[in-house]
Amino acid sequence: MQTFTSWLPIPADSDFSLYNLPFGIFHTGDGKARAGIAIGDHIVDLATAADAGLFGKRRFFKKIFGQNTLNDFIALGKPVTSRIRRKVQDWLTRAEAPENAARLLADRHQATMLLPVRVGNYTDFYSSIEHATNVGKMFRPDNPLLPNWRWLPVGYHGRASSVVVSGTPIRRPWGQIVPKGQESPVFAPSRQLDFELEMAFVIGKDSALGEPVSIDKAEDHIFGLALFNDWSARDIQRWEYVPLGPFLGKNFGSSMSPWIVPLEALKPFRVKSPKQIPAPLSYLQHTARIGQNYDISLEVSVKTGKINGETVISRSNTKYLYWSMAQQLAHHTVNGCNVCAGDLMASGTISGPQAGSYGSMLELSWGGQRPVELNDGSSRTFLADGDTVTMRAVAERGGIRVGFGEVSGMILPPFELQQ
Amino acid sequence: MQTFTSWLPIPADSDFSLYNLPFGIFHTGDGKARAGIAIGDHIVDLATAADAGLFGKRRFFKKIFGQNTLNDFIALGKPVTSRIRRKVQDWLTRAEAPENAARLLADRHQATMLLPVRVGNYTDFYSSIEHATNVGKMFRPDNPLLPNWRWLPVGYHGRASSVVVSGTPIRRPWGQIVPKGQESPVFAPSRQLDFELEMAFVIGKDSALGEPVSIDKAEDHIFGLALFNDWSARDIQRWEYVPLGPFLGKNFGSSMSPWIVPLEALKPFRVKSPKQIPAPLSYLQHTARIGQNYDISLEVSVKTGKINGETVISRSNTKYLYWSMAQQLAHHTVNGCNVCAGDLMASGTISGPQAGSYGSMLELSWGGQRPVELNDGSSRTFLADGDTVTMRAVAERGGIRVGFGEVSGMILPPFELQQ
Repeated sequence: MQTFTSWLPIPADSDFSLYNLPFGIFHTGDGKARAGIAIGDHIVDLATAADAGLFGKRRFFKKIFGQNTLNDFIALGKPVTSRIRRKVQDWLTRAEAPENAARLLADRHQATMLLPVRVGNYTDFYSSIEHATNVGKMFRPDNPLLPNWRWLPVGYHGRASSVVVSGTPIRRPWGQIVPKGQESPVFAPSRQLDFELEMAFVIGKDSALGEPVSIDKAEDHIFGLALFNDWSARDIQRWEYVPLGPFLGKNFGSSMSPWIVPLEALKPFRVKSPKQIPAPLSYLQHTARIGQNYDISLEVSVKTGKINGETVISRSNTKYLYWSMAQQLAHHTVNGCNVCAGDLMASGTISGPQAGSYGSMLELSWGGQRPVELNDGSSRTFLADGDTVTMRAVAERGGIRVGFGEVSGMILPPFELQQ
Repeated sequence: MQTFTSWLPIPADSDFSLYNLPFGIFHTGDGKARAGIAIGDHIVDLATAADAGLFGKRRFFKKIFGQNTLNDFIALGKPVTSRIRRKVQDWLTRAEAPENAARLLADRHQATMLLPVRVGNYTDFYSSIEHATNVGKMFRPDNPLLPNWRWLPVGYHGRASSVVVSGTPIRRPWGQIVPKGQESPVFAPSRQLDFELEMAFVIGKDSALGEPVSIDKAEDHIFGLALFNDWSARDIQRWEYVPLGPFLGKNFGSSMSPWIVPLEALKPFRVKSPKQIPAPLSYLQHTARIGQNYDISLEVSVKTGKINGETVISRSNTKYLYWSMAQQLAHHTVNGCNVCAGDLMASGTISGPQAGSYGSMLELSWGGQRPVELNDGSSRTFLADGDTVTMRAVAERGGIRVGFGEVSGMILPPFELQQ
């Protein structure tokens, strides 16, 4: 792997190294949204860089990067998006600071990040065998994994309109809940509000309705990855989900991190997937001889309003996922379902094999039976109002560090309903 | 009710009377998409009408109506959309044909209709008690209706990207299917391809994330209605749907009719809903003393490639729906989930109490046990390649006729997969 150095000071522990260069949408107080690339404590302002002629086709790229979503940029395809990223890498690794450096850089810590894509369609998978088994154990002790689970990447459609960017507070939802020991529901705020630690990929290339994307071509359609928190209200979900799946237990909000890490930045972190038994059906079989999973460390913290209030409550890794992204996408489209640039596909909760690696409160507190202790002396079975959940992700190998920053959200008390 | 007459000849049996005036997007061979209102055998070209000054604010409305979706128009809100509709009604009911009549009218039978809205989010409900009971009986003879069904309008998120306009052919999907008597799936084209007779409503007004739309305000957010066919592959659906709901069994395509009938045109056809037992929870209780359902006759025909090939196989009515649109929308948003202009919410299969009124092949053939006879001497348990399914809907009362036109689609053979 080539080693890069920059004229710009980049902290060694930064998520946003010269090997990462993720894309996002930001503004700096003027409210003028534009595209940027994160680098250390800075952001390369792509609209200004385009105007300065860094990418050629000045007017075209100024317009593309002056928008409030990355959709049109992403839809240009990987040859273009990769070229832009390399141009920025070249600019950052010149022997000396370019004259226009100050003009093209923004202070990342002063910037406000916006939702990076207009999410046309959002799909949520269920691809961690540990998570599916844990949840299954609580409901069906003798038969935790359903018969279809090892045959296909189970997934469902989520709500695109309520996907929000990191930092957006999440209001505790009202809903129908069946109190313990009763048969009829009451209308009340959720008492089992939860997070789900997930990684999402962003589609970078449309497919046509009626035409499957084969597993070998799947990664051509994946632009990049972001951290994802699929907030869940377990009590609402439990009552509503048969027979058509989760609905109000999920669609009150899902949070994504603001920086999309391009797939190419994750190449050094490819690892083999877990062995799949039984062997998948033909259309789900990888033919490429490269690792189909990614070694990305994940952690979840909960921060209360008190002193010493932040506690890391879970450490997991995307490498545990049973179904790869390519398998998810091949499955999603094998019936002819089309995908569009900007669509989001999340992994489902990523739990590891140990108790400390579970990706939801449901699993960490084992259905509310084992409270999770926090550093401030309090404990949680599910989330309390005022709690802030923060997820972080980073891949590291041979001195190369590629991080995702964070996805964070605070729980607000339920809306006062006029009844 | 006021009686209208026009200088334009309008066939008495037309779906598109002076009382209807639905909105759609069309082009006439030049490929230039624009908005229109259907009237008899014609379309009022709204972009040209705007240019002629019919609505005032000439440039503004010319731009709004010159787009290839109705989203921006719908989002202007009912005071504006209703005013435009009344202006067109006034123009059509002048004492004499206006001078610009020929310029503003297009031949409806020569026009190509496009998808009328860019569907941001698509939700499918399950609001017919007859349908839910029928499907339940086939799987759980002793306990057909699940415990939550009478408490809430069960719904799930569908795929927005694969919603297509009437006339678009539908390719038979491939998928994982478990052959009878076996435990493991094979990869094969669906053998149980089905339609679902539904009515969908189009959201006309955004709501904010975190803020429920109360049942009394729900109809303010409903712009209008369209016919909807939620194509389903029963064999794929049966294997995949636990525990997260339908996915590839549905998302290969859903068809909608091209004309959106504004809610105000359906006022004369309001009827009482079926009695709900148990009484719904507070947020689902209608307080308005008007009928919450609509008396709209529905029919489904299947047309084969042979002579005498078209057979009406079902006659149903939207009045059978147990849950009203207002209840569906109040439920959907009670947890704070936001809705956006252009979102689509479908009713779920609308089955009536008699066998001839069932809204899917699954019910009409009772799970494939009782073939449905067609006029050409053939029979069907599920759909065959080359079959065209057409759904029609019309409301009639006291000489007033408001129809939906049709939603139609032909089944194409499955894609030849390279394996």
